[in-house]
Amino acid sequence: MNAMQHSENRALPEGFADALRKVVAGDAVSTDPEVLGRYGHDETEDLIFPPQAVVRPRNTQEVAAVVALCALHRVPVTPIGARTGLSGGALSVKGGVGLALDRMNAIADIDEKNLQVTVEPGVITQVLQEAVAAKGLYYPPDPGSRGSCTIGGNLAENAGGPRAVKYGVTRDFVLNLQVVLPNGEVIWTGANTLKNATGYDLTRLVVGSEGTLGIITRAVLRLVPLPKETRLMLVPFSDERKACEAVAAVFRAGITPSAMEFMERDAIDWTLRYVQGVSVAIAPDTRAHLLVEVDGNHADVLMRECETILGVMEQFGCQEVLFAETSAEKDGLWLMRRRVGEAVKSNSVYKEEDTVVPRHELPALLAKVKETGARYGFKSVCYGHAGDGNLHVNIIKGDLPDGVWKEELPKAIREIFEYTVSIGGTLSGEHGIGLVQRPYMDIAFNAAQLALMRGIKQVFDPLGIMNPGKVLP
Amino acid sequence: MNAMQHSENRALPEGFADALRKVVAGDAVSTDPEVLGRYGHDETEDLIFPPQAVVRPRNTQEVAAVVALCALHRVPVTPIGARTGLSGGALSVKGGVGLALDRMNAIADIDEKNLQVTVEPGVITQVLQEAVAAKGLYYPPDPGSRGSCTIGGNLAENAGGPRAVKYGVTRDFVLNLQVVLPNGEVIWTGANTLKNATGYDLTRLVVGSEGTLGIITRAVLRLVPLPKETRLMLVPFSDERKACEAVAAVFRAGITPSAMEFMERDAIDWTLRYVQGVSVAIAPDTRAHLLVEVDGNHADVLMRECETILGVMEQFGCQEVLFAETSAEKDGLWLMRRRVGEAVKSNSVYKEEDTVVPRHELPALLAKVKETGARYGFKSVCYGHAGDGNLHVNIIKGDLPDGVWKEELPKAIREIFEYTVSIGGTLSGEHGIGLVQRPYMDIAFNAAQLALMRGIKQVFDPLGIMNPGKVLP
Repeated sequence: MNAMQHSENRALPEGFADALRKVVAGDAVSTDPEVLGRYGHDETEDLIFPPQAVVRPRNTQEVAAVVALCALHRVPVTPIGARTGLSGGALSVKGGVGLALDRMNAIADIDEKNLQVTVEPGVITQVLQEAVAAKGLYYPPDPGSRGSCTIGGNLAENAGGPRAVKYGVTRDFVLNLQVVLPNGEVIWTGANTLKNATGYDLTRLVVGSEGTLGIITRAVLRLVPLPKETRLMLVPFSDERKACEAVAAVFRAGITPSAMEFMERDAIDWTLRYVQGVSVAIAPDTRAHLLVEVDGNHADVLMRECETILGVMEQFGCQEVLFAETSAEKDGLWLMRRRVGEAVKSNSVYKEEDTVVPRHELPALLAKVKETGARYGFKSVCYGHAGDGNLHVNIIKGDLPDGVWKEELPKAIREIFEYTVSIGGTLSGEHGIGLVQRPYMDIAFNAAQLALMRGIKQVFDPLGIMNPGKVLP
Repeated sequence: MNAMQHSENRALPEGFADALRKVVAGDAVSTDPEVLGRYGHDETEDLIFPPQAVVRPRNTQEVAAVVALCALHRVPVTPIGARTGLSGGALSVKGGVGLALDRMNAIADIDEKNLQVTVEPGVITQVLQEAVAAKGLYYPPDPGSRGSCTIGGNLAENAGGPRAVKYGVTRDFVLNLQVVLPNGEVIWTGANTLKNATGYDLTRLVVGSEGTLGIITRAVLRLVPLPKETRLMLVPFSDERKACEAVAAVFRAGITPSAMEFMERDAIDWTLRYVQGVSVAIAPDTRAHLLVEVDGNHADVLMRECETILGVMEQFGCQEVLFAETSAEKDGLWLMRRRVGEAVKSNSVYKEEDTVVPRHELPALLAKVKETGARYGFKSVCYGHAGDGNLHVNIIKGDLPDGVWKEELPKAIREIFEYTVSIGGTLSGEHGIGLVQRPYMDIAFNAAQLALMRGIKQVFDPLGIMNPGKVLP
C-alpha cells in the first residue's frame, strides 16, 4: 500500500532540502526515513503516508519562509499536529513537506483581564486547560485525546468532546487566528473581540478547514470562569434505544448537562477489560449507559439538577444509577469513557464513523446502524456525545474475510451516511473529512455546494499545495 | 444627494418589470415611486437609495426566479429586511431590484424535540422569541430593534444585543441556512446538527456577509431552555471609567451576567425625556449607569449572584443600586435601555459607530473617544454592550457648521477606529460594515485580507450583482 502511495508522489526538487535548511534552523529539517515514517501516520486506521521532508519550525517567520519556498517550487505542504486525528488530515498523501508544529507550543499570554489566551498551535489541549484552570479559568473543548492532541489540530478539525454539549465546540472559543497563507503571507483573520461584524468571517472559515487553506500559527481563544463543582452519574439501561430517547428529554426538562455521553454495552465491557484500575458492576441485562455530568458554582443547584435528570431517566426505565462520590470515582468513570475508542480499536481492525444528527434522531440512527450491520454481516460498537447527537460508529472487522471487508464495507457506510443526511444529519461531527471520508462528500453536498467550497480553496490556495488530497473530493 | 446617487444607476433593461411579473405573482412587483422610496431607506442616518423595482416574493422559488432573471440581465439585487439596519446594508445604492423579504415571515416549525426552529427570513425577532417562549424555549439574540427587525437581517448582519454577553450572537444560534445564490441556484449551507466538521463552514461564512453572497430564504436556528427567573439592577457611578472597569471585574469574579449594559449620563437623561412613563431618580453627580441582569432557574442562586456583583460594583465605587422589584420595573428599565439610540438620534444629526474591543479595554476606548471629541470639537454620547466590549459611539452634530461636520468628522472617526484596532478591537461589533463603514475597512484589514474577502465574493457572485457597493471597499 505504501509503495503504491509513494509512486504518486513527485520527488522533491533537486537541492530542496538544502534550500529548506537555509530558511529555517538546520536541525528543523529532516529527511531521515525513520523521522519521515514517524510523521507519516496519525490515529486513522493503519494508514501511513510519509512526507519527503519533515520541517519543524520554531516560529511564524520560519513557517512562512518554508511555505513560501514550497509555493515557489510547487511542493505540497501538509501541516502536522500531534497526529491524533481520526480522518487522516495530517497524512502527507502527496508527499512533499510535512510541516510539524510540535515545537511551537508556547502559551504566549493568559489574559486574565479579558478572559482570553493566546497560544501557539503545538500546545497540548490538556496543558492549556490546566494552565488556565490554575488561574480559575476554563477552556472547555476537550477531545478524547486531550492529553496528547494539540490546539492547532483541534482548530483544524473543529474538535468537540464531551463538554461541547454545554459549552460549544472549538469554533465557539476562537476569537482570532494568525495564519500563514499558501503563498507564505501572514495574516490575522479577525480581531480579539467577543463580537465581530466586520467583513467576512475568515476566522470561522479557517476553523475546520483541516489545514487546506493555510497554517494556523497563533490563536486567540476565549475563556470562561471555571465552574467550581461537578456531579457525575452513570445511568444504565436495559434498552439502548430508551437510553437514546432519554437524552433529548433531559434538555426538554430545562437542564443543559455539561456532558451527556452514550456507551453501548460492548463499549463498556471492552473498555473495562482494556483499562486497568476501573471497576464498575454491570447488571447482566444492561445494554447501554449514559454518563451524565452537570457543572456549576452551587452544589445545592447541582443536586437539584441531578434529581430532575434522575426523574427523566426513570421515565425511560433506567436501571440503578451510580453517582460518583469522590474525585477518584469521577476520574475513573471519565477514564473509562475517554478510553473507549482505544479499547474498541485494540480488539480488531475497525472503521470509525463520526455521524451526527439532530439530538432526538439518535435512536433512529442507532437502529439504522444495527439494521445495516445485520444485513451486511458487520458487528458495530457505538458510543459518543449523545447530547450533541454525535454517534461514533465503530464497525468491527472481526473474522470477516478481507474481500468482504473491502468490497462491502463502503456500501454499508454509504447507506448509513445517506440515512444520516436524510434525517438532517451529516458525515462528521468532530473528526473532519480529511482523507478517509472524502469519497462520501457527495452524500452531504451537491455540485453547487462543492463548487463553492472548491472556489474558496482556489482563492486561498491557487497552486493547490496546501494539504492536497483532503476534504474536497 | 438623491439625484446624484440616482445618476450612477443604469436604468432597468427594457421590459424588465414585465419579465419580473412573469416569474412572481403580479402584485409582488412594484415600480410605484412611493413604494420605491419606502424601500429606499433604513435606519442609517438620513440616507435614501431607492431601488428601481421592489419585488416582494412569497417563497424560495420566487426568490430564485427573480435572482436568476437579474443574473441573466446583470441587474443588481439588494435584499431588504425590516430596514432597521444601522450601516446601510439594505440600501439599493446601485439601483436595480430591491428584493424585500417581508412576505416570507412564517415560523415553519418549532421542533421541541430537537430544540430547533425553522423560520423564513421575514419573521420579526420578537415574534419568534415569543412563539418559542410559549413552549418554554428561548432564542436569546435580541437586537435593540427586536420588535421590528427580522431574522433575515439579524443573520445578514450577525446581530447581537444585550444577551449576547452570556449566550452569543446570531451566528452562535444558526445551524443551517437555505440560500439563493447570485446565479439563482438554491443551496443549504450545512446540516441541522449542533456539531459539524464536514467541509468548509459555509453557514458561518454567509452569516454576517450582509446579503453580498446570496439571499437567505430559510434558517434552522438553535434554541435553549427558557430561564425561569431574571434579576435586574441599575448601578450608578459618579465616574464613568470606574463603571467600565467594574465590567471586566464581574466576569473575573466568576459571574456571567445575561446582560451588562453601559449608558453615559447624557444617554439616560435624553432617554428619560424621550420615553414616556419611565422615571428613574438620578443623583446630580451620576456620570454613568450599568444595567446588569442575571438569569437562571433558581431564585436563590440569582440572589447570591447579585450579591457577588454588588460586592464588585462597590469595589469600584458605585452609588446606590436600584433593584427592579417587579416585572413592570424590569420592563421600564429595559425600555429605557432599548430606546437610548432613538432618543439620542431624536436630538440631533448624528453619526453612530459600533466599536468593539476586548472587554477590559473599554475604559481606554471611552477615554479615547472623549479625548478625540474634545480635540475635534465633537460631543459624543456613548452606550452599549459593555460586557462584550461593544461601545456604540454617537457623535452629535449639534450646532456644528455643516462644513466642519463633513470635513472633520471622517478624520475623527478614523482616529477612533485606528485606536480601536490598535488595542485588539475592530470597526463593528454587531451593526456590520454595509455602506457607511466601507471607507474604514483599510484600518481593520490589509491588502492580503481584503484580497481573500474579494476572492470569496467573486466565487459566490462572479457577476457582482448581489448587494453591490457594500462591505468591501
